[in-house]
Amino acid sequence: MATNLWTLPPDRGEETVQVLHQSQRVRVEKIVSYGQVSPEGFWYDQPEDEWVSVLEGSAVLRAGEQLVHLSRGESFFLPAHLRHRVERTSSPCIWLCVFEAGEELP
Amino acid sequence: MATNLWTLPPDRGEETVQVLHQSQRVRVEKIVSYGQVSPEGFWYDQPEDEWVSVLEGSAVLRAGEQLVHLSRGESFFLPAHLRHRVERTSSPCIWLCVFEAGEELP
Repeated sequence: MATNLWTLPPDRGEETVQVLHQSQRVRVEKIVSYGQVSPEGFWYDQPEDEWVSVLEGSAVLRAGEQLVHLSRGESFFLPAHLRHRVERTSSPCIWLCVFEAGEELP
Repeated sequence: MATNLWTLPPDRGEETVQVLHQSQRVRVEKIVSYGQVSPEGFWYDQPEDEWVSVLEGSAVLRAGEQLVHLSRGESFFLPAHLRHRVERTSSPCIWLCVFEAGEELP
């Protein structure tokens, strides 16, 4: 049985990432934030599609030009290479994210 | 913004399935059960891998010979063609499921 979605890891001042499922193309991650945001000027630019949801808490993403407010239970799709960053997270904030490798997979 | 994970659809005596994300290979579904189980003698035998999690409530699956008790926040992986059925669900039970098409995809 994998990690429980609701278990909160200790707050060590950074995000905690746990991989709940991994196949060749798909990875399911539980991410717990305690108010962490992306560093100033930092943008994710990743080769994978990512579907993100907020199970508990809330968050604000910037996706390209768009500011995306995610309340508890809301989700959003970030296509590969859409530049994005985390502008705000509650403490705690539990994310469930599904990453999908694109066609570039070796 | 997609359907909220926590919204409960009305109980119409059957499972409610909502697709939260769909790509060529991956599909994320929210499924809400109100005590429904698989019909007597029915088994799922599907061509997709399926990662299932119980966000709220609890459930019991039979996966091959194994009886799998899932409490709130627990998850389980059902590889393609592993025969399985739902033996019990709470009312309500909120599932989050990630389906991944196998190599057989056209």
